[in-house]
Amino acid sequence: MPDLPDPAERVVLATEDDPLLLEHGARLDHVEVAYETWGELAPGRDNVVFVAHALTGDAHAAGAGGWWANLIGPGLAIDTDRYFVVCPNLLGGCRGTTGPSSVDPATGQTWGLDFPLFTMRDLVAVHRRLLAHLGIERLYAAVGGSLGGMQVLQWAIEDPDAIERAVVVAASSRLSAQNIAFSAVARDAIMRDPDFQGGRYAGTGRRPDHGLAVARRMAHITYVSEESLGTKFGRDRLTDGPPRHETDFQVEAYLDHQAAVFLERFDALSYLYLTRVMDYFDAFADPAAAVRAGSGGTRFLVVSFDTDWRFPTAHSRRIHEHLAAAGTASEHVEIASPWGHDSFLLQPPGYHDLLRGFLDAP
Amino acid sequence: MPDLPDPAERVVLATEDDPLLLEHGARLDHVEVAYETWGELAPGRDNVVFVAHALTGDAHAAGAGGWWANLIGPGLAIDTDRYFVVCPNLLGGCRGTTGPSSVDPATGQTWGLDFPLFTMRDLVAVHRRLLAHLGIERLYAAVGGSLGGMQVLQWAIEDPDAIERAVVVAASSRLSAQNIAFSAVARDAIMRDPDFQGGRYAGTGRRPDHGLAVARRMAHITYVSEESLGTKFGRDRLTDGPPRHETDFQVEAYLDHQAAVFLERFDALSYLYLTRVMDYFDAFADPAAAVRAGSGGTRFLVVSFDTDWRFPTAHSRRIHEHLAAAGTASEHVEIASPWGHDSFLLQPPGYHDLLRGFLDAP
Repeated sequence: MPDLPDPAERVVLATEDDPLLLEHGARLDHVEVAYETWGELAPGRDNVVFVAHALTGDAHAAGAGGWWANLIGPGLAIDTDRYFVVCPNLLGGCRGTTGPSSVDPATGQTWGLDFPLFTMRDLVAVHRRLLAHLGIERLYAAVGGSLGGMQVLQWAIEDPDAIERAVVVAASSRLSAQNIAFSAVARDAIMRDPDFQGGRYAGTGRRPDHGLAVARRMAHITYVSEESLGTKFGRDRLTDGPPRHETDFQVEAYLDHQAAVFLERFDALSYLYLTRVMDYFDAFADPAAAVRAGSGGTRFLVVSFDTDWRFPTAHSRRIHEHLAAAGTASEHVEIASPWGHDSFLLQPPGYHDLLRGFLDAP
Repeated sequence: MPDLPDPAERVVLATEDDPLLLEHGARLDHVEVAYETWGELAPGRDNVVFVAHALTGDAHAAGAGGWWANLIGPGLAIDTDRYFVVCPNLLGGCRGTTGPSSVDPATGQTWGLDFPLFTMRDLVAVHRRLLAHLGIERLYAAVGGSLGGMQVLQWAIEDPDAIERAVVVAASSRLSAQNIAFSAVARDAIMRDPDFQGGRYAGTGRRPDHGLAVARRMAHITYVSEESLGTKFGRDRLTDGPPRHETDFQVEAYLDHQAAVFLERFDALSYLYLTRVMDYFDAFADPAAAVRAGSGGTRFLVVSFDTDWRFPTAHSRRIHEHLAAAGTASEHVEIASPWGHDSFLLQPPGYHDLLRGFLDAP
């Protein structure tokens, strides 16, 4: 298993006496959560910004090596001189929080595929327990990109008084058939890897690295735009000899690198469970959801990127339209960016200013 | 190995005495080609339409079960009452023509990865040998979609007097970084499947079916449009129970089916070699190519589909612009179709009429 980022705290948020009851009936008698914080909690506890991470993220959002270090920090758009920022690794993750690669206390063995399937609601339930543990009742803001944005949306729907400002970036209220199809192929690559061993690979010295690498390579293509791949790599090659089977085009070497780095820090079981959370998510399946999301006065900022083809602008527009039609305060902004879905982690012109403006406005 | 379609003829087109010298120096002492024909060869031998198939096609283009049965036949757009239609399985294929899963006569063993890498030019060289064998000097037309269209383009460039009318559908003169990336992931899935056994799986009772299935599932997503997947499957499920790991969304079942059918008829080694042919193809790398393509009077029809994101309209437009700028007779038509890249095999409004009009015009 990958190492946990150093500065994270860990806290036990569910026990046998106070189990986490999952949406579909299963219970978890032990849930431990890794999280990090930055900035100072104001005496009124009214300056908390909760950051929800995406599929392969972790608690280490800010500081050196943080996945959102360009956004969160002193003087940055999510200004830690002003806000107290909290970011946990999510339920089912593999970076310090309980997930399918954790040990089932009932058996003393790694959960594997016996870990219960969970939902977006369950992710939020754990976030809420973390806030209760920290003594925080209401968030100044919740911010997330991709799967992170979906958690923010779900949270606002089911707990309308919890969030003052909700920032939903490059997300979706429900995946398309194409979205589901890509994740299905990724899961298939993992589960059919003989080293997956039905999910019981812990301690065997073999992990489904080939399957996970295929999943990551493929997913990575969908995170970037055709244009940015073309600009960065074009048809450049490593050699100038005749064709060969081995990696030869620069874009192939890039995918190899992405896969290798990913294997160092991520776990195949988490990939299976978290992609499934996204597949089944359908925020507005209940027609009352959009009204409820605004009933506590939450204001929404929904952001998309024009070259994102993983969760295109149409997905963000749909979120905004559901909310706005219900009278919930929402604005949708499409940012021009060459980098596709990954733009939410980068700094296309206007993006960080937009978030800062939304957060800092009175 | 899959069975060869029944009606195909086979012919030996290269021997030790007359080997096929490949573009990058290797030689093949034995090349056998499977092909089919429909219609009657006119006494003047001037009514030949050559059909080049795509990545996973075969010689069985027309008639019952033919992959282009809606286009080729009596009274159809490629009218076999009028034209003599020839379609061979291409070099490197696995449907009757010599490829990496054939036996190397020098060793008596399956070639595997010892089969030399070949190029678009080599595919065309074999086509030309087939025509010579059939006593045909000049084609009334050459028609192909996707990889088939690339063969037509290459042929017209290197043998400008051979083709009167060239129809290049849903093709590209050079793959984008994204195109190459998708094929790289597919090849990786195949080659890292333990049952691939370094390409020497013939006779072992084990084939890299998991890897090939992953490749096909992923590629299939790129062959269809997001819209058509959404229209056909949306988020429909097989069950109405709680989330599960197993196939549950209809779109997953569809991909499972696509993969299963594909495994019955295709070979992993052919997949590796033929995707590599596409990666390295660069029709207009030589600035003189576009001029040469028109120097024998060949007229081009370049067709694309508005929802094709495998080889989008920009690829077809580039082909047309290269040709037109060189003074070569070319027209480019974009057809509106909901079905993405696969549209070339289907019948969106206007498509077949366009081809018929181009072929039948005086």
